[in-house]
Amino acid sequence: MDIWSFKKEGFIADDIVKNGNIFLTGNGYMGYRGTMDEWGRHEMAAVNLAGVYDQNGDNWREPVNAPNALFAQISVNGEIITLGKTGHQKHSQTVNFQKGLHIRDSVFEAVHIKSERFISMAEPHLLASCLTLSFDKDCEVELLTGIVTDIWDINGPHLFDYEYEKGDIIRAQAITGEKKIPVAVTQSVTCDFPHNEKQEVINYGIYRRIDFNADSETVYKINIISTVYTGLDTADPGEAAMSLCKIATADGYGKNLEAHVEAWAEIWKNSEVRLEGDDEAARALNASLYHLHSISPRHSKASSIPARGLSGQTYKGAIFWDTEIFLFPVFAHTEPELAKTLLRYRIETLPGALAKAAEYGYRGAFYAWESQEGGVEGCTNFNVVDVFTGRPVRTYFRDKQIHISGDIAYAMWRYYEITGDTSLFFEDAAEVILQCARFFLSRSHSRLDMDKVELLDVIGPDEYHERVNNNVFTNQIAAHCFACALELKDVLSQADPNFFDYLITKLEFENDLELIKAALPKLRPVFDETKIIEQFDGYFGLEDCSLEDVRGRLLDEREYWGCNHGVAATTQIIKQADVVAMMALFPSLFSDKQVELNWNYYEPRTEHGSSLSACMHALTACRFGRPDLAWEHFIKSATIDLTGGGKHWAGKIYIGGTHPAANGGAWLIAVLGFAGLSVKNGEVTVSPRLPPQITSLRFPVIANGKKYRITVTRDDFEIL
Amino acid sequence: MDIWSFKKEGFIADDIVKNGNIFLTGNGYMGYRGTMDEWGRHEMAAVNLAGVYDQNGDNWREPVNAPNALFAQISVNGEIITLGKTGHQKHSQTVNFQKGLHIRDSVFEAVHIKSERFISMAEPHLLASCLTLSFDKDCEVELLTGIVTDIWDINGPHLFDYEYEKGDIIRAQAITGEKKIPVAVTQSVTCDFPHNEKQEVINYGIYRRIDFNADSETVYKINIISTVYTGLDTADPGEAAMSLCKIATADGYGKNLEAHVEAWAEIWKNSEVRLEGDDEAARALNASLYHLHSISPRHSKASSIPARGLSGQTYKGAIFWDTEIFLFPVFAHTEPELAKTLLRYRIETLPGALAKAAEYGYRGAFYAWESQEGGVEGCTNFNVVDVFTGRPVRTYFRDKQIHISGDIAYAMWRYYEITGDTSLFFEDAAEVILQCARFFLSRSHSRLDMDKVELLDVIGPDEYHERVNNNVFTNQIAAHCFACALELKDVLSQADPNFFDYLITKLEFENDLELIKAALPKLRPVFDETKIIEQFDGYFGLEDCSLEDVRGRLLDEREYWGCNHGVAATTQIIKQADVVAMMALFPSLFSDKQVELNWNYYEPRTEHGSSLSACMHALTACRFGRPDLAWEHFIKSATIDLTGGGKHWAGKIYIGGTHPAANGGAWLIAVLGFAGLSVKNGEVTVSPRLPPQITSLRFPVIANGKKYRITVTRDDFEIL
Repeated sequence: MDIWSFKKEGFIADDIVKNGNIFLTGNGYMGYRGTMDEWGRHEMAAVNLAGVYDQNGDNWREPVNAPNALFAQISVNGEIITLGKTGHQKHSQTVNFQKGLHIRDSVFEAVHIKSERFISMAEPHLLASCLTLSFDKDCEVELLTGIVTDIWDINGPHLFDYEYEKGDIIRAQAITGEKKIPVAVTQSVTCDFPHNEKQEVINYGIYRRIDFNADSETVYKINIISTVYTGLDTADPGEAAMSLCKIATADGYGKNLEAHVEAWAEIWKNSEVRLEGDDEAARALNASLYHLHSISPRHSKASSIPARGLSGQTYKGAIFWDTEIFLFPVFAHTEPELAKTLLRYRIETLPGALAKAAEYGYRGAFYAWESQEGGVEGCTNFNVVDVFTGRPVRTYFRDKQIHISGDIAYAMWRYYEITGDTSLFFEDAAEVILQCARFFLSRSHSRLDMDKVELLDVIGPDEYHERVNNNVFTNQIAAHCFACALELKDVLSQADPNFFDYLITKLEFENDLELIKAALPKLRPVFDETKIIEQFDGYFGLEDCSLEDVRGRLLDEREYWGCNHGVAATTQIIKQADVVAMMALFPSLFSDKQVELNWNYYEPRTEHGSSLSACMHALTACRFGRPDLAWEHFIKSATIDLTGGGKHWAGKIYIGGTHPAANGGAWLIAVLGFAGLSVKNGEVTVSPRLPPQITSLRFPVIANGKKYRITVTRDDFEIL
Repeated sequence: MDIWSFKKEGFIADDIVKNGNIFLTGNGYMGYRGTMDEWGRHEMAAVNLAGVYDQNGDNWREPVNAPNALFAQISVNGEIITLGKTGHQKHSQTVNFQKGLHIRDSVFEAVHIKSERFISMAEPHLLASCLTLSFDKDCEVELLTGIVTDIWDINGPHLFDYEYEKGDIIRAQAITGEKKIPVAVTQSVTCDFPHNEKQEVINYGIYRRIDFNADSETVYKINIISTVYTGLDTADPGEAAMSLCKIATADGYGKNLEAHVEAWAEIWKNSEVRLEGDDEAARALNASLYHLHSISPRHSKASSIPARGLSGQTYKGAIFWDTEIFLFPVFAHTEPELAKTLLRYRIETLPGALAKAAEYGYRGAFYAWESQEGGVEGCTNFNVVDVFTGRPVRTYFRDKQIHISGDIAYAMWRYYEITGDTSLFFEDAAEVILQCARFFLSRSHSRLDMDKVELLDVIGPDEYHERVNNNVFTNQIAAHCFACALELKDVLSQADPNFFDYLITKLEFENDLELIKAALPKLRPVFDETKIIEQFDGYFGLEDCSLEDVRGRLLDEREYWGCNHGVAATTQIIKQADVVAMMALFPSLFSDKQVELNWNYYEPRTEHGSSLSACMHALTACRFGRPDLAWEHFIKSATIDLTGGGKHWAGKIYIGGTHPAANGGAWLIAVLGFAGLSVKNGEVTVSPRLPPQITSLRFPVIANGKKYRITVTRDDFEIL
């Protein structure tokens, strides 16, 4: 089998949405759903733009989809050919992970359509496709292509005041409703055969009608090149898009493709994990990294990755803690500049976090749970719709998931630990850590008659239990944030002896530093090695029933399990790793035995109702020498975007799309779990615990600026 | 019109449940629902016992209904006569407030049945009825009477292992399921005409069949006397019941009735509020006090009054804060010994409150929200059933309504303020106050970076908003509790200079006293006279819509408005007086203007979905000189148990019954509101604000051990 591509034969209408995710292509600047050339909004064809958000009316803010210039619809003798409507003889859809290609091959009675599509990894604003048409009989053919502005949105429309420009290169330009950001799209079409072209602006777009008489001997090739710019990229996106399209068209499809494939080759050189022993698993791991790379913001110095990547507007296109905990470590170990880019997004959005803390009456930085541009909180107070009443339900994700600030500080500290690079601290990461610590300080309470610091009324990683006290994950990540704030002085003084004091003065932090010092030992959880850690105050008092019991109580499969009313809320059934996640993030605090004890308690009580769960369980299972237990979670993580698995509904809200956290999680399990990679004080070690399915793992790592090539086999390992 | 009785003519089947409450008779030891002699469990006939609780299976604990010995069913020529099944020509039901009598008068074709019933106010264990039968034609009559053990229960059965004894006096005795408390009931029947009697034990009871040949000339009188004792009264309740029944039977119905009426006369002498100018209102006020007296525990030295009185098992027969805030003040001003009895119930149940605090990880006394015997918490974690799913809903009444401890301390302090009597403090009320203060201390938190004490995650009087921070009512009542704890030393030292120190040492309270002293100024709310007081942190940020808006969102009329999902929860619509209640309880803290400002804001936002609400609004409206606004609330409070109004459902839970808090509230509005009675440092003052409907009010008051007769007219007042 080919571990570098994934192919589906045949067509199933019910899979259209799922396939849109599985066969996604992207380059971090934009993502193109895995749809057919001739499809539109109903099949959720979309060019999802990173970092461009818009709000229509009172609806949720969400990212903007650009007009689609790779639209191409064939008519033969007047009959429109559309997969799903026109009968077909054969059909397949393929994604090539190595080269970042989407390939479609459909045999209809009247025409055989092949197409190849790429979103350029070499040039972020470029996307292109190549159609190859052949016919059994002579016939009259019309290709309808152009820039389609009737596009898929969840809460749209978002683009208004369209302007169109005809010519060799056609152009459509519009502005977003809320912030009036211009978005420009161009298209050129190259045909290597005689044809007539008519251009027209009709409802929803600017179109080309390309007519030709086809014969059965010839293979007809059509190359479409498109560029996309927005007002966030440049002052005149229309001009920029036009100018780039001219150059790219002059270069030709082939040259652009070549540059794209080379860029992917470089990416794989730095990140490929060669897994031997199980080709299915090897392919799934390649798919995971493919999806991760397809949405990584290499075009930017300060951007991040939404929780559903660039597969659509699900989860409001927002950045969650997923990025810091599940994606960031992949890049920190393989492509530190990109890791830095992700963290810089949090530095840039510090003002948003300061404003959010103030909104709730706190000091410091309370980062958005669903962070949009500028750190704007995308999460509303009503994040779930009750399936029985159709009413929005008051949820507390926005207000109470305070661990997000700790997760960000944790990642910034990890960046330093893995890379040895302190420069980010001077680019304001130090300020972020201090402001996060200040937030936790101001969010902490002390009982008047007890010498203990508490974080009350929070939601931990397990979102099914809202408004709990002293969630141990949250307390630990906050305590860690305190510790980082206190350690900063030493770390910064290596490069600049005065910077820390400068910062403390600037932020008027003297008193807070004292308070943090005093609070840390009273907040930091104390773990008894022989006891199961209680997830939060009173957790053990909840009904202790099985996952099946709880599932059996559902009256509607789309019911939300959490919140005050949910079937899990009053039980010990949890959504995802919580205590287990803490053990994965802070391995040095726990003995193998302790990890095992807690894993055995919590794993059967975990629904794994989030793509964040499997990875944490796998990493910790490796810790106590049970990679066999980790294997199932690894496969689940690595294959989620091959099978189109995962949850699709939270109440009545669609939450489908790709799963970057699981994609990153697959790498984490393979490298940190199975190979047991550890980077500490510049030293790289591995302690392999390969599951029986794997004979060897080979992968590159960068640590402290040095490149390593690591090979792990069943009996041996090598670090070069 | 007769302001001393209430009569309903005719029969409406749908009113059976309502009438059971309206026509209730009782003496504090037991309550007998206003049902027909021949009715049983289906019509909710019940003899509800005060303070005897039982749990069947996993159901809610609830008070026990005794077997019904006033059951009497007539058959004429073999035809059973039952109101509602047998056609009738005329029917009326009357309750006489002055004499505590239930009178029924039904004319059927075959028989004219009159009956009079009383639950003796002179002898708590005695109840009796007198049937008067007359016939148009000669006929054969059978009277089926006896002790019916097939009784109404919500979560029953509660009585098991019945033993029966035949004889002149028959007896049924059983034990409760949970605590094996024996309950004994006897019955004697006296007929002043020739008859045959057969006794038999059949299903559900011991019965007498009394046969006689009736003629149309004679009026047949049958007297039934019954006694009830339980194992909580005496070691051998069977013997006690038998012995009392013998004496009472020998004395005869008339003598027992006379003693009963005399006892009521004495009660009215001490408490009647003669309202002139509006007879409807005067009658409603009499009805309110009638209901209040019918359920007041004069038989005990330490008992209290359940939230639905003795009208059934609704609200688990439990004691709520209603008693301290709405009932206690009536007695504190008119019958201090009874006020003391109510407070002693809280002293006796201190161990339960200490245990409840410990259960939640706190120190001190956390009184039960729904207090049963021994202070056992009757409130479960699932106190509402969702109407859409039929699932119990996690509510936080049990865990978060901490103001209850403050309400109790408040009442104990008020007792001292009104009566000048410190003796209760030495009977452990001082300890209760200290333990309540200790609880609030241990329930208080302080932010690490702020010099402020907070009560977090509470429910205030407005139960529609669960889990709020710094509910101002709660903070104020807790601060008041702190203040009382600190003032205790001075007050106690008048009678015993060492007692306070003894108590502090005994309770190891030295350090807590210091902490309380320090905390008080940081907890006590500060009020800006010119601003509307925010009910809790963030209240003003909730949706500000109208009551009608919120009501219009209901999809089911039985929907619960509160809880996380309820229609009111995310709006400013509140269930009942909260800020307004605080202003009513602490009048000296607020200027008239301030009261008016807040009243005008909160009243339109108040659903008054509780019988506790109207009284507080009326009292405060009188404060700022608008008794006209108070009038509607007065009428609502005073008539609630004449109309059978009030809410009947909370989700799928039946919550009907009588409304003692509204009954007490009617007195409070008349005396403290309209007459403006105030007792302070032994001084009795009035400041009348009579509404236009009232020309005068006359009532007795006891303050500092001295009796006063007060008359208030439109232009004048007199204190004698």
